[in-house]
Amino acid sequence: MSARQMKLGAFLWATGHHIAAWRHPDAHVTAGIDIDHYIQLARTAEAAKLDMIFCEDAAGLREANVQFASQTARSIGFEPISLLSAIAVQTERIGLVSTASTSYNEPYGLARTFASLDHLSGGRAGWNLVTSASQIEAANFGSTGLRPHADRYERAREFAQVVTGLWRGDGNGGLNHDGQSFSVRDALDLPRSPQGAPVMVQAGASEDGKDLAARTADVVFSAAQTFEEAKAFYDDVKRRLAAYGREPEDVKIMPGVAPVVAATEAEARQKHEELQELIPDEVGVALLSSYLSISDLWRHPIDGPLPDLPESEGMKSRQALVVEQSRRDGLSIRQLARHFAGARGHWRIVGTPAQIADELQARFEGGVADGFNVMPSWFPGELDAFCALVVPELRRRGLFRTDYEGRTLRDHLGLKRLA
Amino acid sequence: MSARQMKLGAFLWATGHHIAAWRHPDAHVTAGIDIDHYIQLARTAEAAKLDMIFCEDAAGLREANVQFASQTARSIGFEPISLLSAIAVQTERIGLVSTASTSYNEPYGLARTFASLDHLSGGRAGWNLVTSASQIEAANFGSTGLRPHADRYERAREFAQVVTGLWRGDGNGGLNHDGQSFSVRDALDLPRSPQGAPVMVQAGASEDGKDLAARTADVVFSAAQTFEEAKAFYDDVKRRLAAYGREPEDVKIMPGVAPVVAATEAEARQKHEELQELIPDEVGVALLSSYLSISDLWRHPIDGPLPDLPESEGMKSRQALVVEQSRRDGLSIRQLARHFAGARGHWRIVGTPAQIADELQARFEGGVADGFNVMPSWFPGELDAFCALVVPELRRRGLFRTDYEGRTLRDHLGLKRLA
Repeated sequence: MSARQMKLGAFLWATGHHIAAWRHPDAHVTAGIDIDHYIQLARTAEAAKLDMIFCEDAAGLREANVQFASQTARSIGFEPISLLSAIAVQTERIGLVSTASTSYNEPYGLARTFASLDHLSGGRAGWNLVTSASQIEAANFGSTGLRPHADRYERAREFAQVVTGLWRGDGNGGLNHDGQSFSVRDALDLPRSPQGAPVMVQAGASEDGKDLAARTADVVFSAAQTFEEAKAFYDDVKRRLAAYGREPEDVKIMPGVAPVVAATEAEARQKHEELQELIPDEVGVALLSSYLSISDLWRHPIDGPLPDLPESEGMKSRQALVVEQSRRDGLSIRQLARHFAGARGHWRIVGTPAQIADELQARFEGGVADGFNVMPSWFPGELDAFCALVVPELRRRGLFRTDYEGRTLRDHLGLKRLA
Repeated sequence: MSARQMKLGAFLWATGHHIAAWRHPDAHVTAGIDIDHYIQLARTAEAAKLDMIFCEDAAGLREANVQFASQTARSIGFEPISLLSAIAVQTERIGLVSTASTSYNEPYGLARTFASLDHLSGGRAGWNLVTSASQIEAANFGSTGLRPHADRYERAREFAQVVTGLWRGDGNGGLNHDGQSFSVRDALDLPRSPQGAPVMVQAGASEDGKDLAARTADVVFSAAQTFEEAKAFYDDVKRRLAAYGREPEDVKIMPGVAPVVAATEAEARQKHEELQELIPDEVGVALLSSYLSISDLWRHPIDGPLPDLPESEGMKSRQALVVEQSRRDGLSIRQLARHFAGARGHWRIVGTPAQIADELQARFEGGVADGFNVMPSWFPGELDAFCALVVPELRRRGLFRTDYEGRTLRDHLGLKRLA
């Protein structure tokens, strides 16, 4: 391989990323707890030579209202470490990235678990670091409530430092870390793992988030609707690397993309509209509320504009994205809800394989993405379609690998070998 | 099945339970991080129709001295949840029991992980609750040090209550637990798991430990050298059940047993002696020190008696076991070290298949055990020998199943169905 090629992840999530995925006529409603379903998705992604599968995580019922949770069938599913460990021994090459929280874990335990996954997968593990921004999780882990944003990132910085120290065997037989939030004496009770250290992924887009990513991440999963947003984010993160003695190629920036593909554009648009029609307004508004970290959005007229919002300790960057979109396109609450419910704030492309490849190529060659984290609207249908239709088109253009170059996730991503 | 039959577990542990297992000429020194090794062991146990495999856990380097840790190759290995999740999708029927600590986890996270394992294994998960008695782990999870014994059990009681509440779906849509150590609002973000709730296992033998077992355990893993010790423990735990509205058959008591089996007694004795000869005195004394929760045992003459011991906040029952044995048999430190290093305080039987079956039968029919947790001295050799030689002998006597009666671990153990 000589030319630069894009990296591709498959973001797996129960019935699918579209909030009405579970209502799709071919959806598998209990997908979230069907291990054979997940193994099949991972094998599909592996057969297409994708870099990795990616799992999100939150320890709680995603929607405050339990009825919505079961209705949307989105927050119901396997805990991701057990899920990826099972998938590890049913696949050979594909990377396995799981989200885990720095707020509700301890670094020694988390470092051990991911090192264990790296060993049992032969060097395919990755950790997507999140600080957990939801009140819902906070209420399941003690009564102290959600920590302020800056405090979460302070803890996350130290957490990441301890974890990477344990993975890399710092300290000559014992870590002896004694810091603000954590005190850890031993070395890890596992040998150095096959990758030297599991891959570090991050998705935070606040100032603190981008800074932490520049300091520690190998991969950044981002959300950007437009080319300009993607470019601003890309340039910003790459620019921050030098301060930590890192090169631009040390971090792969992979925005999320929600493709809806079919042989003809009309067919693709029809597939997309069929799912959009299935979004209940209550569900759309509830999801929008969670992005905005407010609870009383439903009190405002659904065909009116977004109200003014209080200062948030939740996902600052996600809130800003919604407000920006609302202003740019003058959308009502209902329109915004439907828009974000469909692709969860991520970039959506509806079209033919060539049209989708064109769009991905433009961002990849335009220097605003090193690859993409693919978020199929429903499983298995839309992942199958992406792998069968878009991947071959990217391959024909020389933009994606024809086979894995190595055995580990670090190999796939073209990251430097660790000392 | 009409007659009562014994339950059998295979306690898996890297190279083996004998402290010198890694020095055995046929040992697989990197067994602890070889997933294929573990999958093969699990399949051997499943082919023999054993009830479960069992994994211990501690988040730290077991021996304070890192050199000893790598020398013994015993505290090096997979984190058990990732290990058992991988094994789950490579086996069909055998139960999967993992140890996890109530001191270094949060109940919502732990309940989720085991429910997830129960889903992905089709109802074969079990949790062995431990409170974590070692200073070594404490030093990896903050600077507060080891909690006093009674406090650990107070926390464990509340932890178990929250976890079982989450598993069983108490609280009609939200647990809303607000207690001394934990505050948990949501219901679990998984449907009720195939077993209704994973099986609860416990191994504590202190007053607090036995009381907690009587309150919550389905299986108790115990350590007893003699018939009389086993009887006292068995009767004590069964007697405590009534106070919690439970029947004697609701809890299966499975003492550990370390069998060394061969076609002739002479051959079995020789196999055993060969391993005993491989125990370095330093390693034996270091292990004995950890059982006694003291650090300066090596200062005392190795051929002299055990010194008087200070009051311990560590494993009270294990310490008592060592002291009792020392007094009963008048053993020196070296002799005690070698004795405990060999079988780690558990019951050892060396002999022919018939001799071993006789001993197991005597305890099973003598009403001091409902089954046994088998601790092979080295893997795979001694597990293979047990399954090939002892299991068929037990089966001939009608003491063990010829095939699984059901699909879940609860089915295998003959536990009542949960409401």
